[in-house]
Amino acid sequence: MTSTPLTTQPAVLTIAGSDSSGGAGIQADLKTFAAHGCYGTSAITALTAQNTTGVQDVLPSPPEFVQKQVTSVLSDINIQAIKTGMLFDANNTRAAISALKVHFFSKPSDVTQNIPPLVCDPVCVSTSGHTLLDSSAIDVIIKELFPIATLITPNKAEAELILSHRQSSPATSKPLRSIENLEGMLLAAEALLRSGPKAVLLKGGHLTVSPEDVRIAAADHPDLQVVRDEITPHGDNMEILQTSTTAGMQLVVDILHETSDDGQLRTTIFCRPRIESTSTHGTGCTLSAAIAAELALGSNLTKAVRRAVQYTYLGILTANPAIGHGHGPLNHFHSMGAVLVPKITPTNPYPLTTLLIRRSASVWKAYVEHDFVKLLGKGTLPEKHFLHFIKQDYLYLKYYARAYALLAAKSHSFPAIDSATQIVLSVLREINTHTTFCASFGITEDELRRTPESPATAAYGGYLIDVGLKGDTTLLMMALLACLLGYGEVGLWLKKNVKTGDDGWVIMQGNPYLRWIEDYTGERYQHAVKLGLETIEARAAADPPSPNRFAEWYAVWERCTELEKGFWDMAMNLS
Amino acid sequence: MTSTPLTTQPAVLTIAGSDSSGGAGIQADLKTFAAHGCYGTSAITALTAQNTTGVQDVLPSPPEFVQKQVTSVLSDINIQAIKTGMLFDANNTRAAISALKVHFFSKPSDVTQNIPPLVCDPVCVSTSGHTLLDSSAIDVIIKELFPIATLITPNKAEAELILSHRQSSPATSKPLRSIENLEGMLLAAEALLRSGPKAVLLKGGHLTVSPEDVRIAAADHPDLQVVRDEITPHGDNMEILQTSTTAGMQLVVDILHETSDDGQLRTTIFCRPRIESTSTHGTGCTLSAAIAAELALGSNLTKAVRRAVQYTYLGILTANPAIGHGHGPLNHFHSMGAVLVPKITPTNPYPLTTLLIRRSASVWKAYVEHDFVKLLGKGTLPEKHFLHFIKQDYLYLKYYARAYALLAAKSHSFPAIDSATQIVLSVLREINTHTTFCASFGITEDELRRTPESPATAAYGGYLIDVGLKGDTTLLMMALLACLLGYGEVGLWLKKNVKTGDDGWVIMQGNPYLRWIEDYTGERYQHAVKLGLETIEARAAADPPSPNRFAEWYAVWERCTELEKGFWDMAMNLS
Repeated sequence: MTSTPLTTQPAVLTIAGSDSSGGAGIQADLKTFAAHGCYGTSAITALTAQNTTGVQDVLPSPPEFVQKQVTSVLSDINIQAIKTGMLFDANNTRAAISALKVHFFSKPSDVTQNIPPLVCDPVCVSTSGHTLLDSSAIDVIIKELFPIATLITPNKAEAELILSHRQSSPATSKPLRSIENLEGMLLAAEALLRSGPKAVLLKGGHLTVSPEDVRIAAADHPDLQVVRDEITPHGDNMEILQTSTTAGMQLVVDILHETSDDGQLRTTIFCRPRIESTSTHGTGCTLSAAIAAELALGSNLTKAVRRAVQYTYLGILTANPAIGHGHGPLNHFHSMGAVLVPKITPTNPYPLTTLLIRRSASVWKAYVEHDFVKLLGKGTLPEKHFLHFIKQDYLYLKYYARAYALLAAKSHSFPAIDSATQIVLSVLREINTHTTFCASFGITEDELRRTPESPATAAYGGYLIDVGLKGDTTLLMMALLACLLGYGEVGLWLKKNVKTGDDGWVIMQGNPYLRWIEDYTGERYQHAVKLGLETIEARAAADPPSPNRFAEWYAVWERCTELEKGFWDMAMNLS
Repeated sequence: MTSTPLTTQPAVLTIAGSDSSGGAGIQADLKTFAAHGCYGTSAITALTAQNTTGVQDVLPSPPEFVQKQVTSVLSDINIQAIKTGMLFDANNTRAAISALKVHFFSKPSDVTQNIPPLVCDPVCVSTSGHTLLDSSAIDVIIKELFPIATLITPNKAEAELILSHRQSSPATSKPLRSIENLEGMLLAAEALLRSGPKAVLLKGGHLTVSPEDVRIAAADHPDLQVVRDEITPHGDNMEILQTSTTAGMQLVVDILHETSDDGQLRTTIFCRPRIESTSTHGTGCTLSAAIAAELALGSNLTKAVRRAVQYTYLGILTANPAIGHGHGPLNHFHSMGAVLVPKITPTNPYPLTTLLIRRSASVWKAYVEHDFVKLLGKGTLPEKHFLHFIKQDYLYLKYYARAYALLAAKSHSFPAIDSATQIVLSVLREINTHTTFCASFGITEDELRRTPESPATAAYGGYLIDVGLKGDTTLLMMALLACLLGYGEVGLWLKKNVKTGDDGWVIMQGNPYLRWIEDYTGERYQHAVKLGLETIEARAAADPPSPNRFAEWYAVWERCTELEKGFWDMAMNLS
């Protein structure tokens, strides 16, 4: 409905009552806004002492305080949609409307120009049967709130009340009929639209409709749109998904009747299978809050209603019936799941890697601060250990190059193929250096090639190929990470401890392994480390892992960290 | 803290003020409970007209109504943890305590036996500087609330206020010192513990501590535990993760001082890097609510505090600074992400597949209700089309068998290897049937083998192998699904339309393709469809896909559905 640029988290305001038991009122609204990624604010019109079995007491807020709350919110926060719920009485209704008009209407004639989408849920009676609206308020709601409302969302009883109220004025002649079937709903929706709002959503939760009724209505009204929910298998070509529970179900329908932007009347029926549930406390609050949230997010009205109806339906389907002893609350957070890896922030551009390293702290430390590294830094590592290491590293690098080649083969974009291939090429260059380096210790290339693989090398190399076969590209990157990052951390650890004066223990001058130390402390390698970090963090940010998926990633990371440590153990043991 | 069996969604109660702007008070508490997967309920002690720039007005609830709200909640809902926030004044504090005691304490001497974990946030002053607690209330809080509290969570100002209040009684002799450093915090935490609660979390957000201060404190107090957050790279062996922003940061510390179950005093320091942020409105409310939620979920106190401190810190780090013009709210939902696939419910055991089919409705219909299928059902399909199809299907099934063999090769559990291998075996059996079937039409096995692959076959077969190479086992299953499910749907569609009397158009008697029809309408194939559905749904339930991952799944599903339709187009065009 709004064409202004949206922030990533639009703010929404509810003006309604408080439900201590958390399933309806502003509590349901705030939960619903949050589940839609919106920021929720609230003005409380009345407190209730309430639970799932009923309303024990109601305490209205003074009208001035209703107005003050609305004003505090509007004067500070850029509100993108508003919903009204229980307004309690005429005075509180007027106070809420007055606060909205003072803020949004620069001229009295300027009826709806600046006001964001406003969804009016004309709450009159609670699910548990408690009357929640003073009859004096109905007139004010119709005359003053409906004209500025984007949508009103009455249920059967509320629609009947509103229509009978209009009829009490002599201008209207049509007799009131109670709403008993789909045809009656369609007539009522038309009458309600004439009462002033831009659109009406007449909720049919209290009526049962057959698929045949919908078919007949669609045939009688050629302009009627019929929309089915996306979450249950009813409709054509879904026979394989039918179960004994779903076959031949009756329907619940909600009817959206609106005047579209081009002045045409439009009617949409939203259908879903009727289910038996006692978890319906706060259904109406939730639906209207969900519509407001969708409108704040930029959906048009039909899409907002379609998605909100489905959201509310899923809330009932997935509700926890163990909460309370009466009509329990919906599950408001059915469409949100735990995210384990924190978002990237300026303070930490590498949250995934931070988590991996923290969780594997002891094995990571044993790898990075290995005796092999210490002796190498001191320059006192016996040559035979280094030579054993360098020969096995030559063999390991063949697996490592192949694993990156496999990554290229599994990649489906040119930049990804390029980046993996560049690493293969840099490993091949590293092998040249290795060969020259080994020659300086009197080891021929032939000898290098004929060196038998130690178990540590075979275990590590085989694991890389195995992960590369079984998983996707992200999992393979996870396997390749311990090597890349660990040598980077070793480089920086050695660099930090270079002997200058009395401090430090890493000897540079005359260290026989100086070149190795310089390779990993050097800018070129450290740059590759940063690139690797950024790639894997971008993956995790674009495709946040579920807890099970993160566990799979972590297992691969931890295993490779152990295998790296094992590689240096091998060099120390000459195994 | 609780040893009772936990439901999956424990309920938590907050007794606090309402913040119209949604960042503090019961609104922050309810958002925090929800972000922890808890069900939130609330008793409102006072309304505020408030925003991020300040508190414009406060309206206390009558004490009777505070008591009524608490009673409504406790009498109906099984509350697993409680937090108290702003209690406003002595009367409302007494009303809240009285409601708790009436419900939980069967005997006056029965001090804490039945009450769930109670976290008391002694809110006195808002972030914006507004005094929120009547001084008369402090005495009631210390004397009546602290003794039943699991934990109190004062900040520096609140701790100083509580300690000075205690000192006004002549029994205490130690002079009050304002809390200015880490050592002062440690002394204050000890003094606060003596004021009655089982544990104290002294919040250090208003003090800056250096890593050196923490080192000295740890050396001076050998029993002190130091806990670092898991989300920022500070500490050893994380040099590669340092950036110019994080290097050399000062710390914020919170101190937990408690009497453990064995009667020993225990102190833990929680450290995190200090960051500059204006998004701190409701920090204290959020932290105490998060601790209550963690306790409700079954964490012990140290774990609850560690996790809650980190949760709150991330809320500040990831906050949206665009909300309001003053001290903006935290991001309460940083650790939740959108879940696209609804949960499995009795009404729909196949929510993933429902979504896949609904989103691809037109191509799915074009595949299932293909002319090829119609003519086949009527028995009027020219034989040459069927023969073209059956020969290409023979070639396709080779890819199909290889793709399942690849699935077996990528699987890492015996049941998964078994299930994929069984399908390879059943395809091999199907090939035997195919060969016999073709022989009945005069096609030799040699001719079958020498049939050139049509482009439709090569495209589909190559795609299966490609997906099998690039993705994980779930993605490969997604590629194999369109074939399995589509033939199942075709089978049920044909079955539904079998001619009986005047209805239906599928001819069974004398249909030359009867055997083919019977294969896919038959129980054996339909059983395989159900197995396939259950496997893929279980995958999605165990590892809920991110929106990007779902898009990847959907793209593979839709592509294979198109390729299936293309396969039948080929048979009709003899291409």
